[in-house]
Amino acid sequence: MKITKPTLLLDKQKCRKNIKQMTEKAKRNDLIFRPHFKTHQSRQIAEWFKEFGVEKITVSSVEMAKYFSNSGWKDITIAFPFNQLEITEINELAEKIDLKILLIHPESVDFLNKNLTQKIGVFIELDCDYHRSGIPIENLEEIDFLISAIVKVKKLKLEGFLTHSGQTYQTKSTSQILQIHQEVKSKMIKLKEKYSSQFPDLKTSIGDTPSCSLADNFSGIDEIRPGNFVFFDVMQYKLGACKAKHIAVSVACPIVSKNEQRKEVVIYGGAVHLSKEFILNEDGTRNFGLIVKLTENGWSEPIEGAYVSSLSQEHGIAKVSKENYNDFKIGDVVGILPIHSCLTANLMGKYITLEGEEIHHM
Amino acid sequence: MKITKPTLLLDKQKCRKNIKQMTEKAKRNDLIFRPHFKTHQSRQIAEWFKEFGVEKITVSSVEMAKYFSNSGWKDITIAFPFNQLEITEINELAEKIDLKILLIHPESVDFLNKNLTQKIGVFIELDCDYHRSGIPIENLEEIDFLISAIVKVKKLKLEGFLTHSGQTYQTKSTSQILQIHQEVKSKMIKLKEKYSSQFPDLKTSIGDTPSCSLADNFSGIDEIRPGNFVFFDVMQYKLGACKAKHIAVSVACPIVSKNEQRKEVVIYGGAVHLSKEFILNEDGTRNFGLIVKLTENGWSEPIEGAYVSSLSQEHGIAKVSKENYNDFKIGDVVGILPIHSCLTANLMGKYITLEGEEIHHM
Repeated sequence: MKITKPTLLLDKQKCRKNIKQMTEKAKRNDLIFRPHFKTHQSRQIAEWFKEFGVEKITVSSVEMAKYFSNSGWKDITIAFPFNQLEITEINELAEKIDLKILLIHPESVDFLNKNLTQKIGVFIELDCDYHRSGIPIENLEEIDFLISAIVKVKKLKLEGFLTHSGQTYQTKSTSQILQIHQEVKSKMIKLKEKYSSQFPDLKTSIGDTPSCSLADNFSGIDEIRPGNFVFFDVMQYKLGACKAKHIAVSVACPIVSKNEQRKEVVIYGGAVHLSKEFILNEDGTRNFGLIVKLTENGWSEPIEGAYVSSLSQEHGIAKVSKENYNDFKIGDVVGILPIHSCLTANLMGKYITLEGEEIHHM
Repeated sequence: MKITKPTLLLDKQKCRKNIKQMTEKAKRNDLIFRPHFKTHQSRQIAEWFKEFGVEKITVSSVEMAKYFSNSGWKDITIAFPFNQLEITEINELAEKIDLKILLIHPESVDFLNKNLTQKIGVFIELDCDYHRSGIPIENLEEIDFLISAIVKVKKLKLEGFLTHSGQTYQTKSTSQILQIHQEVKSKMIKLKEKYSSQFPDLKTSIGDTPSCSLADNFSGIDEIRPGNFVFFDVMQYKLGACKAKHIAVSVACPIVSKNEQRKEVVIYGGAVHLSKEFILNEDGTRNFGLIVKLTENGWSEPIEGAYVSSLSQEHGIAKVSKENYNDFKIGDVVGILPIHSCLTANLMGKYITLEGEEIHHM
């Protein structure tokens, strides 16, 4: 395959292995596995999940639900606060598939009561200290009130409680991630128990990739919804949720210039390819991606001391070590492991496997 | 127009006024106006430039040069370090249009000598302290060497010296921007003068929107290449390069949730719509966009004390003031002025004018 400009490479073997491992973990723990498809947004990669027996999925928008519904997926949770402006599309989807949405506010229940034409499932979104959206899990009054509103509407089927513990992304150690997992799990179980006599079938659903990758104990939880594990990325690697060798995507970028004094390599690969997501290096500088050597069969481990230090629209600046500087040659192509693979895949718009096959992105 | 999900609104009147003002400034200062089209990437918006007499343009990739060449543009500078891997596409383009590229390294000249099939123009890219790419302007030895290599190759026409002073984006006041402009101008003029007896036709080309918007004195400069001014954005506003009322794009985002305790509004509009570009507020917190009220004829000035404080893939969290909190209602649509309009337009993929017309994006 001849690479002439930024190209999103997908290592299909690594990706399938990531899918296999999470699927097996879910099975081992007797969990409903409802992977989040917002990371790959690809009907072809979705098929690989199907091969491992996955039938239920999570998406982050109505548009994505439509895309996967059109590819034959029949059981979809839109893990995003219900957007009443999309009621027409939601009704259309609910006619065709087993659709589930998230509710937080009683006024949404009123709206659905008036405007829903189909029966749909609803999860109550809870906030377990991430503070993005959802009812604070301690606020039993609001939860009670919402449940009583939901059960009055015949077209709404109360599925259970759902939370996303995105605060695991702000941790500094795997033990902190496991501690958050433990706390969130306890709170969710306690809530489920509170309603168990009245609603014995309510499910608890949790989601973030760091917890789902690192934790081994899910007892009391019914469903997991990780997404990013399908590719992983530098953020997950730095969090300890994966090893560098598990990262299944890299952006192949031509080297177009160099600066010996600053030990910098200029790549064709910028914010419109990688996204401006960064992590902080230990010295406080920004890191927009790790650098790997492209090989016959994929790519190497990250090159010691090399990282993308800044991004313009199309330019990337890679800092490299004195020892490695001369290995980078104008006209060569290097690989960049993305900080956040969901955003990179969304920007790149398609994948090329190591075998040269083009894989669709929504 | 019924908005149900994140939608990139374009105020055509503001946009045309921005184009008109920069065109007139270029004329007043007897400058070649070669606007950078990487901001809008739209053949339709390009036509508005044509109406103001613009014939020469700048782009940031070979792909973009092809796109605009296909729309009839005949004089294009690719303001990005020459990428030898795209030589086939460059030869194809040079067959059809007056193409100019940037050179930094003598090995690129060797490569072009062997592989170029068409005559093309070349600018030497100089680094005037931005430290992204280009030969440091003080390094006369390297500049001399590159010029002597270029003039030996018949298919290369030496056009002049080009620089991008992106360091204006790191300033804290308009006086700092004007000082950088003055320094860069002086250095470029001095360099041009050094070569004027040998090469009397060499041009000096500068580019950044902050300098081009704020400066009034361009004497000694031949060409300007600003791009972002076509829309402007919050970054330009904060730099003082425009007023808020000049920002010609906003992302219309549905409100999907609220949190009274934190005075936060959750919008459908995330990193895949706005990009993760941010500026820092005075208190050091991140700001991913300012919030405006959508009106019959466009949008309001930014709402006092309201800004996007964090972004997930599809969620945006807006912090609002205690006084304004109740004005934000679930099911309403608010406008977000983007931090960096180039990246937002690239993500959104198309524009809708206030009149409801759909405008293409590459």
